[in-house]
Amino acid sequence: MQIAIIGASGFTGGELIRLLASHSEGEVVCATSRKLAGKAVALTHPHLRGFTDLEYTNPDVGDIDVDVAFLAVPHTAAMNYAGSLIERGIRTIDLSADYRLPKDTYEKVYGVEHTDYHTVPYGLPELHRNEIPRSILVANPGCFPTGATLAAAPLAKRAHTIIYDSKTGVSGAGVSPSVTNMYTNVGDNFTAYKMTAHRHVAEMRQEMGFLGSSASVHFTPHLLPVNRGILTTAHILLDEPITQEEVDALYEDFYAREFFVRLQRPSLSGVRGSNFCDVAFEVEEGGKRVVAVSAIDNLVKGASGQAIQNMNLMCGCAEADGLMVVPLQP
Amino acid sequence: MQIAIIGASGFTGGELIRLLASHSEGEVVCATSRKLAGKAVALTHPHLRGFTDLEYTNPDVGDIDVDVAFLAVPHTAAMNYAGSLIERGIRTIDLSADYRLPKDTYEKVYGVEHTDYHTVPYGLPELHRNEIPRSILVANPGCFPTGATLAAAPLAKRAHTIIYDSKTGVSGAGVSPSVTNMYTNVGDNFTAYKMTAHRHVAEMRQEMGFLGSSASVHFTPHLLPVNRGILTTAHILLDEPITQEEVDALYEDFYAREFFVRLQRPSLSGVRGSNFCDVAFEVEEGGKRVVAVSAIDNLVKGASGQAIQNMNLMCGCAEADGLMVVPLQP
Amino acid sequence: MQIAIIGASGFTGGELIRLLASHSEGEVVCATSRKLAGKAVALTHPHLRGFTDLEYTNPDVGDIDVDVAFLAVPHTAAMNYAGSLIERGIRTIDLSADYRLPKDTYEKVYGVEHTDYHTVPYGLPELHRNEIPRSILVANPGCFPTGATLAAAPLAKRAHTIIYDSKTGVSGAGVSPSVTNMYTNVGDNFTAYKMTAHRHVAEMRQEMGFLGSSASVHFTPHLLPVNRGILTTAHILLDEPITQEEVDALYEDFYAREFFVRLQRPSLSGVRGSNFCDVAFEVEEGGKRVVAVSAIDNLVKGASGQAIQNMNLMCGCAEADGLMVVPLQP
Amino acid sequence: MQIAIIGASGFTGGELIRLLASHSEGEVVCATSRKLAGKAVALTHPHLRGFTDLEYTNPDVGDIDVDVAFLAVPHTAAMNYAGSLIERGIRTIDLSADYRLPKDTYEKVYGVEHTDYHTVPYGLPELHRNEIPRSILVANPGCFPTGATLAAAPLAKRAHTIIYDSKTGVSGAGVSPSVTNMYTNVGDNFTAYKMTAHRHVAEMRQEMGFLGSSASVHFTPHLLPVNRGILTTAHILLDEPITQEEVDALYEDFYAREFFVRLQRPSLSGVRGSNFCDVAFEVEEGGKRVVAVSAIDNLVKGASGQAIQNMNLMCGCAEADGLMVVPLQP
Repeated sequence: MQIAIIGASGFTGGELIRLLASHSEGEVVCATSRKLAGKAVALTHPHLRGFTDLEYTNPDVGDIDVDVAFLAVPHTAAMNYAGSLIERGIRTIDLSADYRLPKDTYEKVYGVEHTDYHTVPYGLPELHRNEIPRSILVANPGCFPTGATLAAAPLAKRAHTIIYDSKTGVSGAGVSPSVTNMYTNVGDNFTAYKMTAHRHVAEMRQEMGFLGSSASVHFTPHLLPVNRGILTTAHILLDEPITQEEVDALYEDFYAREFFVRLQRPSLSGVRGSNFCDVAFEVEEGGKRVVAVSAIDNLVKGASGQAIQNMNLMCGCAEADGLMVVPLQP
Repeated sequence: MQIAIIGASGFTGGELIRLLASHSEGEVVCATSRKLAGKAVALTHPHLRGFTDLEYTNPDVGDIDVDVAFLAVPHTAAMNYAGSLIERGIRTIDLSADYRLPKDTYEKVYGVEHTDYHTVPYGLPELHRNEIPRSILVANPGCFPTGATLAAAPLAKRAHTIIYDSKTGVSGAGVSPSVTNMYTNVGDNFTAYKMTAHRHVAEMRQEMGFLGSSASVHFTPHLLPVNRGILTTAHILLDEPITQEEVDALYEDFYAREFFVRLQRPSLSGVRGSNFCDVAFEVEEGGKRVVAVSAIDNLVKGASGQAIQNMNLMCGCAEADGLMVVPLQP
Repeated sequence: MQIAIIGASGFTGGELIRLLASHSEGEVVCATSRKLAGKAVALTHPHLRGFTDLEYTNPDVGDIDVDVAFLAVPHTAAMNYAGSLIERGIRTIDLSADYRLPKDTYEKVYGVEHTDYHTVPYGLPELHRNEIPRSILVANPGCFPTGATLAAAPLAKRAHTIIYDSKTGVSGAGVSPSVTNMYTNVGDNFTAYKMTAHRHVAEMRQEMGFLGSSASVHFTPHLLPVNRGILTTAHILLDEPITQEEVDALYEDFYAREFFVRLQRPSLSGVRGSNFCDVAFEVEEGGKRVVAVSAIDNLVKGASGQAIQNMNLMCGCAEADGLMVVPLQP
Repeated sequence: MQIAIIGASGFTGGELIRLLASHSEGEVVCATSRKLAGKAVALTHPHLRGFTDLEYTNPDVGDIDVDVAFLAVPHTAAMNYAGSLIERGIRTIDLSADYRLPKDTYEKVYGVEHTDYHTVPYGLPELHRNEIPRSILVANPGCFPTGATLAAAPLAKRAHTIIYDSKTGVSGAGVSPSVTNMYTNVGDNFTAYKMTAHRHVAEMRQEMGFLGSSASVHFTPHLLPVNRGILTTAHILLDEPITQEEVDALYEDFYAREFFVRLQRPSLSGVRGSNFCDVAFEVEEGGKRVVAVSAIDNLVKGASGQAIQNMNLMCGCAEADGLMVVPLQP
C-alpha cells in the first residue's frame, strides 16, 4: 500500500511518517513540499533519521500515483488536490477543514468560496465508523472538536448547555515562527487566545446535532506552555438531575468497544505521542452539572493518528495498525 | 510600624518579606517557624539575601509584640493565634481560610470545628474597601476566589449561571514536596485536579451573594506547568441578552477607581510578581454568554500582596505602599 | 521469552514495559513491587493502560522463574537479587550501579561493602558488543556515562583533558517527591546540582581507560526544567592540534555500523522516547579544543532502552528489537 | 534627571522602564521606536500599564534633549547615535557591542567597519568602577561576559585554562519570532547553539587580560527552556593546586564590597528579575580544577540593570538606586 503525504514538512506530516514507520502494510513513498523539494525529509525532521530516506518532492497532483494520500495542507489548499486524487481512485484523507462541514457552513465560517465541494464522512471513528469504509474521501476532524466531542458525546441527549473550555499545546500553532508560538510569549505563561469565537465550534455543534442533542454549544480555547496535547473541560448543564452511576453507565456503554478511548483520569502526558483519548467525568452535587474532561495528543488523535485510523478503516486494515504507540510519560 | 509574620517559611511568607522590603512605613521584625527557629531567613529564601538579616524564631504567640501580624499558617492553625493577637490590639491579617466564611459554612466546608470564631471583613478591597479600616482582624481571600470574583463581579446581577474554569500555577500547592507538585507530574503536562468540588467555591458563592447575584456558581480548577499565577475563565450565562458596549460600560464603571484592576488582555506573565488583576471580557454572538477572563499572581494579589493591601487600609497607609512592583515579563 | 522486571513501579520499570510491548519475542510476565503488590501496573503507570494487564507481585527472588530479568532497583539492592537469578540460568541485566565498576572502586565510590560481586561486561554495546553475548549478567551503564562516553570515545586517545558538562532532565531524580524534583524548584529554573564530585565520573574514567585514553576526566552535572534527556557537552583538550576533517573521519569511522548513534545536531527532543544517541562535534580555531555534544533520553539509551539492547545481544535477538521507537518531536 | 531610551520596544527597553519606575532621581521622558511611533508603550509592554503613560516617538537623534540616554539598539546601529549624544553632553550608556572592544577587535569579530569609534570604559562595575564616573559614554557588557567574568575573576591569575559552559534563557534571542525562540523548538528541550565560536568570547578574553590572566579562554553557549537568566559554569584549570580555603578567601576578598555579587548557591530563580549575580565555587579533589558557577538575569545584570548601575555611577547617584528589586522566586 503506497502512501503519499501532500504537505509533509509540518508537524502533522512528520507525525504521519513517524507513525506509519510501524504500519504493517503501508509505506510512505512520496512526501511533498513546495519549498523543500530536493531536500531530505530527515533534514527538517531530524528525529526521523534512521526511519526514512525520502526526499521532498513537488510533483503535479496528477502525477501522484499511490494507493492512499494524506492532505496535510492548510484549508483552502486541500480543495485543490482532493478532486484529482479521488477521481483516480486514490483513497484520500484530508486533515484540513475543507470537507468537515456542509458547504454553506464552511463558506460562512471560513469566509471563502468552496470550489470543489464533496459530501464526505466526518472521520471521527467513534461516532462515524460505519460511514468511513464506504468513502474514497474522508474529512479528518479538527483537533479541538475531536477531544471536545469525545468528552461530551455520551451525555449529548441530556445536555441543554455545553461549554467546552479547552487548553492546547503550542504545536497546534504550526511550524512557522510567530508571536503566538514564541517561547517568551508562552513559557511560564498562560492565556485565552479566543474568548467566544473560534471556527472549530461549528464542528462541535455539528457533531452534537448528529448525536441528537439540542444543547447550545460554546467554546473557549487557551494556550498552554506545553508542546503537545489538548485537555478539554466540558461543563455540561442538564435540565434533569443525573446520578454518578447513570453517568458511569452512559460512558462505559458508549465507549465499551473503543480501544482508543480510555476511561481514566486524563492528563496530557498520559496520552503523549499516542492515539488515545482519556476521559473522566464527575457529577456535581445536585446532579445538574457534569464535568467531563478529555485529553488527547493534538498531533495524533487530533490529527495524524486519527487520519491513519481513518485510512485503516477505508482500506480494510486493522484499525490500530501503526497506532500501537504507547504514550510517553513523563 | 513593626510587623510579625507567623509562619514565614512558606511561599506566602517569602512574598510578604519581598514586598515589605519596599514598604515606606512597615518593617518585618519577627518571622516565625517552628522547624527553622534559629536559622537565617535567607537560608531558606536565598533570593532574599541582601534584604533581610532576620532569623526565624518560635515565640509563644503571647510574646509577639508588634503593630501588625500576618498569619501565614494553614487553616485551623490560624484560629489558635488570632485571638491572642487581636485582644492585645495587634492588627491581624489572616491569610488562611479560618475567617472567610460564616462559622457554620466554614465548619461544613472544612469539616472541622471552629474554636475561636469572629465575624470579620472579607479582605477583597475592590468589594469591601469600606469595611476593612474598621476591623482589627481581616480575612484575606483565597487565591481562586480573588481572581474569579474580580472577573465576574460587574455582571453579578445579570448572570443566572457562572462557571469558573481556573488554571493555577504550582506554587499554589505549597513548599512541601508531593506528587502534586513534582516536576515529572506537572512539566509539559496539564490536568484538572478537582472536577466539581473544591472548597473555594463557598467563597465565590458568598461574594456573588454579597453583590446581590442570584446566579448559580460552579468551579473547576486545573494545574498548569507554571510557577505562579491563576487565570480564571468565567463563563457567564445571562437570561437577557447584553451588548459588548453595555458590558464595557459595566466593567469600566465598576473598576474606574481601582489601581490594581487593569482592563486589558490577561496573561500570567503580564501580572507576574505584582498585585495586579488584569481582566478582559467578550460577549458571544447572541448576547447571552459573556466570557470574562482574569489573571492574577496567586502569591501576590491571591495572597501576600492583597494581605499588604489590607494592612495598608487597616493602618491608614497608602493602599499601594509596598505594592508598586512592576510585573516581570517575560 | 518470559521476562521479569524486579522493581517495576519506577520510571525505568515503566519504560521497560512500554518498550517491550513492541518486542517480537519477549513478554513481561512478572512486575514486582514491594509496596504495590496486588495493584494493577496500569494504576501507577496509567499511560500503559491497554498494553498490560499485569498486577504487581512481590515474590521471593528464588520463585521468579523466567528467561530474562531486569533489575530496576537501587544500587545495593541489586546485589541481593543477582546471585539467585544467574545461578538458575536467568539472563539478568542490572540497571543499578552494583556491577559497573571493579569491586574496590565500587566500594570506595558508593561507600558500601559489596556482598556478592561478579565481574561482568559493562553493557555499553557500542564499546563492548563482543563481551555481552558471553555473559549471563550485564551491568547496564549509568545515564550520564552513556551519553558522555559516546560523545568523546572517538577522541579518547588524542585527549589530555576531558570535561563533561552534563545537563539532565528531572526524571533522573526518580519517582519519589523531593526538594530536588519539586516543580517550583525546577520549573523556569536551572542549577548545577553537583560541582566537582558525582559518582558517575568513575564509570566515565573507566571507559576512557578501556579506550586506551590517558586523559584526565572531569564531570559537572546540572538539572534542567525538562522531563527527559541528557545533553552532555564534552570539552576535549588536545596536546596536538587536529583538523575538522580528521575529527569527522574519526567519528564517522567509530560509529559507522552503529544504528543507535546518529551524527547530527543533538537536541533532547530529537531523541525523546527513543534509544538514539545523537552526536555532533566541532574543532575550535587553533585545533586544540574539540567540543563534542551528545543527546540521549536518560530513561531509554540511558537506562531501559540500553538494557533491552543488552538483552537482545545476550539472547540472540535482533539488536533493535523493541527499540524501533521513533523519537517524539516536538 | 531626564532619560531617553533609544530603541525601547524590545526586552531591554521594557526592563529599563520597569526598573527606572522605582529610581529616585531619573524619569524616562522619551522612548523611541521607528515602527511603533505614536503608539502607547503600554500597548507592547502591557505589564507596564500603570507605570508609564509614554508613547513611542521617532525623533532625530539631534532632537533628543535629555540628561541620560540608553542605547538599546542592535550593534552597528548604536554607533550612529552615540556621537551626537555625547557631543551635546548627554551621558550615554550603550547596551550594544559597539564600544566594548578595541576597534580592530570589534571590526574583526563583528565583520563590519566601525564608523565612529571612541575608547570608553567597559561597564562592569565590579572590575571597572573607578573608570566609569569619568566618562560620558560607557559600553555596557554583553550578557554572557558579565556572568562568566564574575564567576572566574578572583581566580584569573591562577588559571591556565578557563572553559565557560553557559546556559541562557530564551529572552536573549530578542522579541522577534524566529526558529531559535519558537516554543516547539525550545520547550521541554535543550541544545548547544554554538559549539566553539561565539562573538562574546572576545569580551571574556579581554576582561581576563585586564585582570592580568594569561589563561586561554573558551566558551560554549546553550539554550534553556526558561524565559530569563544565564547560568555559567566556569571550569577553571590551574597549574598549581589550590585548596578550598584559599579559593574561599579569594572570592570573599574580591567581592567583599560588592552588593550585587552574592556568594551563595546560584540558581536562575534566585536572581530572577534582579541585578544580582550569585556565585559559588568548589575545588575538585586534587586541587587543579575549580568549578565556579554564576547566575544572573540576562535582562538585568546582563543588560538593563547593569546599564542603570552604570548610569548611577556616571551621574553620582547611589549605585543601587532603581535596582533594589528583590528576585522573584519561585
